[in-house]
Amino acid sequence: MSLKLYDLAGAQPERRFSPYCWRIRMALAHKGLEAEVIPWRFSDKAVLAPSGQGKVPVLVHNNKWLSDSWVIANYLEEQFPGHPSLFAGAEGRALSYIYSTLGDFHSGQIVRLVLMDIYKHLADQDKEYFRQSREQRFGMTLEQVVQNRDTQLPVFRDSLFPLRAVLKTQPFFGGDEPLYADYALFGQFQWARCISDFELLAADDPIAHWRTRMLNAFDGLALSAPAY
Amino acid sequence: MSLKLYDLAGAQPERRFSPYCWRIRMALAHKGLEAEVIPWRFSDKAVLAPSGQGKVPVLVHNNKWLSDSWVIANYLEEQFPGHPSLFAGAEGRALSYIYSTLGDFHSGQIVRLVLMDIYKHLADQDKEYFRQSREQRFGMTLEQVVQNRDTQLPVFRDSLFPLRAVLKTQPFFGGDEPLYADYALFGQFQWARCISDFELLAADDPIAHWRTRMLNAFDGLALSAPAY
Repeated sequence: MSLKLYDLAGAQPERRFSPYCWRIRMALAHKGLEAEVIPWRFSDKAVLAPSGQGKVPVLVHNNKWLSDSWVIANYLEEQFPGHPSLFAGAEGRALSYIYSTLGDFHSGQIVRLVLMDIYKHLADQDKEYFRQSREQRFGMTLEQVVQNRDTQLPVFRDSLFPLRAVLKTQPFFGGDEPLYADYALFGQFQWARCISDFELLAADDPIAHWRTRMLNAFDGLALSAPAY
Repeated sequence: MSLKLYDLAGAQPERRFSPYCWRIRMALAHKGLEAEVIPWRFSDKAVLAPSGQGKVPVLVHNNKWLSDSWVIANYLEEQFPGHPSLFAGAEGRALSYIYSTLGDFHSGQIVRLVLMDIYKHLADQDKEYFRQSREQRFGMTLEQVVQNRDTQLPVFRDSLFPLRAVLKTQPFFGGDEPLYADYALFGQFQWARCISDFELLAADDPIAHWRTRMLNAFDGLALSAPAY
């Protein structure tokens, strides 16, 4: 078995800050799989060419190249059936997918809160690409995107109501133990804490308590990463 | 076996418009259970006294009184294990709960779009209670709550992004077939269509197509109810 994961890195190679890569790093740990995790930068798009696209995570397994976190999670589940399940069956898999799409949704909110912090941590060769592509996406400068983040924060926190309500009655979204549902959401919070000291959650938020449980999972895999 | 369900009704006894009652009516059908469904109005709070609270749905099973749609769904799952499962196992149950809390979240948005339509369908004896309690909750008149609904509609539709994304790759939130996850969300859309001609969804929205599939489930249980 040979597993390689291309993982977004900043100017410091050990600073890893892709929400989607964190989903897969946690999923690999859940399944007890070791992978060679390779730092990758936006300017290394050519390296990913065999995957047919230019974004991480990219997983390489026995010369098979896969992209997209949901596709990779499903591949790991199918290829390693004797390992702990990420989904708990076909229905569990279907029910889990909302956590991936909710994670995507909240990514779209969080990026507006931490965009300048991402920029500050980028390798020099990535900065121009990042500024240009993101300013085009948002239709304004990076600085303008985040200038109202203090007023956007309560809106973001309110939108977490459905997640917060779940965690009032169970420790993980997967129930008594974390499942891929948890990793799909946790990626966003880990991404933010790896590149920003802006506090997304109030200290007494049940989601903050869940985040702490996730940070401690797998012998502190996420906790030990360079972060704020 | 004796099952009774108290179900919110309007001036017309056959007009049923509680999102939470619809969750349970669909769940009962999923499990192949027959219940006596009893029309109930806000002014009938005393009838529910044995449940220890004053809101529907209330299920009565062999003299046991239960309230809260999530509690009732769990009770049905435990009491009728030989019937089709609403959750697909313990992990499926944990993963399903987000659909109940997402449904609650979207209820809070939909009520601001259809509040006057609810009011118009109430039995006379319920109107004063409804106006007073809701105007206190919203801090404005019923008429004021809905006056901006055309500008609120796109915000509501945007917030459905995670649900829409799931339905792009699977026909039901439970996967190939509906599960309680589907009923927990469908309750909101059925509630709205039972009392309002205001169209919540664009015709080409994948959620609208899913709603049609849900309307047709169980020989058109939801489709055959008085609605718009």
